[in-house]
Amino acid sequence: MTAAAGGAASAAAATAELARGVLAGQPRPIGRAISEVERDSGAVPDILRLLFARTGRARILGITGPPGAGKSTLVQRLAQAYRKRGVRVGIVAVDPSSPFTGGAILGDRIRMSEIYTDPGIFIRSMATRGALGGLARATSDAVDVLDAAGFEVILVETVGVGQDEVDIVRAADTIAVVLVPGQGDDIQAIKAGILEIADVFIVNKADREGADRAVAELSMMLDVSEPKAWRPPIVKTSAPSGGGVADAVAALERHGEYLRESGDGPARRMLRARTRLLSLLSDRFRRAVEARALAPDGLEEAVQSVLGRHEDPYSAAERLYVAVVGAPGERERVS
Amino acid sequence: MTAAAGGAASAAAATAELARGVLAGQPRPIGRAISEVERDSGAVPDILRLLFARTGRARILGITGPPGAGKSTLVQRLAQAYRKRGVRVGIVAVDPSSPFTGGAILGDRIRMSEIYTDPGIFIRSMATRGALGGLARATSDAVDVLDAAGFEVILVETVGVGQDEVDIVRAADTIAVVLVPGQGDDIQAIKAGILEIADVFIVNKADREGADRAVAELSMMLDVSEPKAWRPPIVKTSAPSGGGVADAVAALERHGEYLRESGDGPARRMLRARTRLLSLLSDRFRRAVEARALAPDGLEEAVQSVLGRHEDPYSAAERLYVAVVGAPGERERVS
Repeated sequence: MTAAAGGAASAAAATAELARGVLAGQPRPIGRAISEVERDSGAVPDILRLLFARTGRARILGITGPPGAGKSTLVQRLAQAYRKRGVRVGIVAVDPSSPFTGGAILGDRIRMSEIYTDPGIFIRSMATRGALGGLARATSDAVDVLDAAGFEVILVETVGVGQDEVDIVRAADTIAVVLVPGQGDDIQAIKAGILEIADVFIVNKADREGADRAVAELSMMLDVSEPKAWRPPIVKTSAPSGGGVADAVAALERHGEYLRESGDGPARRMLRARTRLLSLLSDRFRRAVEARALAPDGLEEAVQSVLGRHEDPYSAAERLYVAVVGAPGERERVS
Repeated sequence: MTAAAGGAASAAAATAELARGVLAGQPRPIGRAISEVERDSGAVPDILRLLFARTGRARILGITGPPGAGKSTLVQRLAQAYRKRGVRVGIVAVDPSSPFTGGAILGDRIRMSEIYTDPGIFIRSMATRGALGGLARATSDAVDVLDAAGFEVILVETVGVGQDEVDIVRAADTIAVVLVPGQGDDIQAIKAGILEIADVFIVNKADREGADRAVAELSMMLDVSEPKAWRPPIVKTSAPSGGGVADAVAALERHGEYLRESGDGPARRMLRARTRLLSLLSDRFRRAVEARALAPDGLEEAVQSVLGRHEDPYSAAERLYVAVVGAPGERERVS
């Protein structure tokens, strides 16, 4: 055996051991597997290959909403409520608003919290590394790790109301959008954007002035929007005291029943698998462009050509595409 | 000439006329070109090809920040300040928080405003169609249209603090991050994320309590962060009254001088061209996967295989990739 082959064999053995640890529900291998996922290491495809057959059992809940809505505390309370039912809970807190700083903020806040000592709860925060679509991929992979490890409910928490957060919480079966009373003028814009992804609305900090008005406004908005088979319920909570949390869990679970009964659940999972596949395919192509398929400096030459206005970006992209994949005619001959 | 060839010829003639109108600075062709860009029509590559040689002259300013920071009013005031200098101003207001509803909110608000009647200002709002990375592409293309049309300053306004907004405002030479005093607990998380993209901080609604504290906090954060050649200045504004707007313009222009003098400007434009090319390449590949390169039902078969846990997503993506591009060995033989 060559040294290189020996190294590859021992790496494969290490990955297999890691996967066994995850499947046995051991916290350290779970944490290490998610770290691999977070930094998109070369071991991720093998890890997922070894775990994937054991996924698909967990109920995945997405919790999103604008900054300041008190999501972290609410997620704690939800996790505690599920724990009381004897359910093991995994939490992935994703922070797309920290594209550069490694986003330890959420993690630290959660780490200090009271649920951190419960062995039936596994908490992990992740922050984007600035890679396009990278955080949605990492979230799906981390959910798979927790699912394979036997967590029965997985909470995916994300801060914000942009397309990213939408992509991230789409990994969930049921999506709760958390709002607070009186967040200013742009709340209308926020609501318009998240109206369609919410399966449940949670008006948190419900002891604040304006909570009932927020509920009424949401309700009116649902009244005027296109009617769907599932009308998102609106629940009021006050996370620090735990008020309303049981109602929130009940609403989340009612939506779970709806998914099972209506056929909407399988349709969602299919769309999700499709999006995930296409996204992995794009990543794969991008790596090929950057690492292998182009002539040396081909990309940099194209960048210079665009910068000098000798070529527009669309023409340059088409030229590079043909260089990687071959012209359409050529393709047909190859396959 | 066949009917199809005749149709193609007249489409090409229409595109050429549209491009001529844009280059002549006519509002209707400009608006129509941006509409094509917004819906990613088949004419976009031709439009950009015809316009691109005339781009690269505008100064592009990105304005971002959390909802409720008063960005729209501030953008109006900035546009008016530049108009007083005799500069033609283009505005692209991008709303990634409305992934589904077409996001007319920003547009409507701006349309009602006092600057809408000034022929030296062109305003356009855009909302994502839910396409991954689509809004950053559309924004770059719209900026090119306005640039080719002769607008000397282009303001790109976007709501939010996630990775999307970062991708969108990256189309700008200079990025201003707008904050307001007292936006709650998660302001720390927001600040951490946007610290690295801000070239200028604007604390808006500076008449509110806590404005000086917000400035002091930002300043402290800059003190403890890694020192860079350009330290983002912090400016206080009160957009409705126009207070501080001259200072904001001065800060934006100082950064413009810095870009010209330091070589940071060309480096930024190069990174931007590179990101844009890679993104267009990915889009091109994705279209090939969906429309042409896979065997009929190849993608759907793979989705089903993943859903049934017969295959993990990474293995399925690799298999599809080889089906589109060919195996690595095969590629080398083709080229």
